[in-house]
Amino acid sequence: MPEPSNKAEHVVGVDLGGTKILAGIFDGSLECIGEAKVSTKAQRGVGAVVERIDRCVREAVDEADLSLKQVVGVGIGAPGAVDFAAGNVIFAPNLEGWKEVPLKKDLEKHLGLPVFVENDANIAVLGVHVAELKSKPKSVVGIFVGTGIGGGLIINGEPYSGFNHTAGEIGHMVIDVNGPKCGCGSRGCFEAVASRTAIFQGIKAAVKDGEKTILTEMLGDSLEDMRSGDLRKAMRRGDKLVAKVIEQTAEYIGIGVANLVNILGPEVVVLGGGVMEAIGDEMMPVITKIAKDHAMPGTMKGVDIVATKLGDNAGITGAAVLARRMTK
Amino acid sequence: MPEPSNKAEHVVGVDLGGTKILAGIFDGSLECIGEAKVSTKAQRGVGAVVERIDRCVREAVDEADLSLKQVVGVGIGAPGAVDFAAGNVIFAPNLEGWKEVPLKKDLEKHLGLPVFVENDANIAVLGVHVAELKSKPKSVVGIFVGTGIGGGLIINGEPYSGFNHTAGEIGHMVIDVNGPKCGCGSRGCFEAVASRTAIFQGIKAAVKDGEKTILTEMLGDSLEDMRSGDLRKAMRRGDKLVAKVIEQTAEYIGIGVANLVNILGPEVVVLGGGVMEAIGDEMMPVITKIAKDHAMPGTMKGVDIVATKLGDNAGITGAAVLARRMTK
Repeated sequence: MPEPSNKAEHVVGVDLGGTKILAGIFDGSLECIGEAKVSTKAQRGVGAVVERIDRCVREAVDEADLSLKQVVGVGIGAPGAVDFAAGNVIFAPNLEGWKEVPLKKDLEKHLGLPVFVENDANIAVLGVHVAELKSKPKSVVGIFVGTGIGGGLIINGEPYSGFNHTAGEIGHMVIDVNGPKCGCGSRGCFEAVASRTAIFQGIKAAVKDGEKTILTEMLGDSLEDMRSGDLRKAMRRGDKLVAKVIEQTAEYIGIGVANLVNILGPEVVVLGGGVMEAIGDEMMPVITKIAKDHAMPGTMKGVDIVATKLGDNAGITGAAVLARRMTK
Repeated sequence: MPEPSNKAEHVVGVDLGGTKILAGIFDGSLECIGEAKVSTKAQRGVGAVVERIDRCVREAVDEADLSLKQVVGVGIGAPGAVDFAAGNVIFAPNLEGWKEVPLKKDLEKHLGLPVFVENDANIAVLGVHVAELKSKPKSVVGIFVGTGIGGGLIINGEPYSGFNHTAGEIGHMVIDVNGPKCGCGSRGCFEAVASRTAIFQGIKAAVKDGEKTILTEMLGDSLEDMRSGDLRKAMRRGDKLVAKVIEQTAEYIGIGVANLVNILGPEVVVLGGGVMEAIGDEMMPVITKIAKDHAMPGTMKGVDIVATKLGDNAGITGAAVLARRMTK
């Protein structure tokens, strides 16, 4: 049984995304006891987004029948390069106008509470580390497969962001130098061949070439509004095209895992994000096999490759962990 | 002016390679005042190699008109996975029979001095860090291009080797998934497209296809005994084929640099090894341009990409630095 929660120790974790803001209030045993969600509306400008974060935090606290006075700190994961010490978002490519934003300072003014800002992928890995990984590994690589591919690093037990606070940009590791164009301008980046975007493009291209899939029955010939969950449904109904594209994607992810194990020598590799949440069960055996085949002898010994079960909550959990650590 | 050397502070640095062993004795201001070199002769077995290291150390010390009594410690870089704390070489793929070798313990018995063992690439980066990089960066990635491609990491100011002591195996980062077969079994590894081996294969294949090069005049049609220095000579004589292959190689190295900057966010990237020593001047502008083109926005800000001038001495210098640090 966990200890009864100490109200003076409540923390709030926030996950600031390109489309939505999630907030969760956590008790002394790191249970989430209230959540809130609002859309980001980045186009309204930085000030408006900061106000929406403030509102989302207050709503989560209210959801748990508590007040801000019972919260000791707020952690927040932001989608970009973050200067943790200063509490600034240096830049966030998916948030319009976010350059050198003093998020810590601004939000502290709104909330009257200490605020701590980190990169969202690093914070998600921290959440998985504390809530799921019982061995408490000293080094972890997190790979989050969604619209793009994000990465988070734990080195020597701490989130690691490197010199420019940009370490972990694994989505733009080139693995197929002659491969498809990536949004970043390069060719064959990890996220250009293995993200949800790449999966959808692969399926759409095959359909154009005349290949058959149940997805066209489900969604119409133009395959609009396709979601990760549709892939799972199609696979479970025996769809061969979807199975083939997913297997290929899993192979690419396996090669990405091997690259990162060769380079970083982590103790645990964590896979997460929307794609893994939807079809991780189908992909994990292929990812693990290909990763082991491609990693150098000795590098994989005792290394765990796991899929997180925290899903969308990894971010708010990690942010709460950060707030807890910093206010202790 | 450096302080006059304190004889009680002499250290020896050793670079254990697959074909040769280098040792250097360094004074209190980290000047190398004596060197020795012997062939490794790995085929004679582990015990024989340890004896040869012992001999090489003694010869370097003698070269400086000193005795072992004036040495406080020995550092050694070994070509493989090393457990620094235990002083064991876990495995070294290019040294026959080297699995779980207690090199520290064995060599301490021979020499009667404290011995410290690290991975050779990590130690070479440490040597460059101390002897060449005036800014004393907290994070460095070293890329050593020779027969293969080795990597060394400094993170938070210290050599970093990860969970299995194998971090930095950057030569087996896949960057061209459909590329040429690598010795490791994968396709399109960094060293399969950008090492000396890859350069020589590229030139030989082009010659077979009927392309012209001065190299056949210099070395005969079979291009036997080609060395990195021959490439430099051919380029300086205006050889177009060699220039083309070298440019392609530099482009691949640039992509490798970008990948590592995206993943690790280092402050400095150091390029070294035999190929860089021979034709680094020709390759560096291309490497730097391609790396900047391929790295994500923000990741390259203030990052230095430099070629080391230490050459073969990076290893013994770093090993000496390690010995000095550990005996202080």
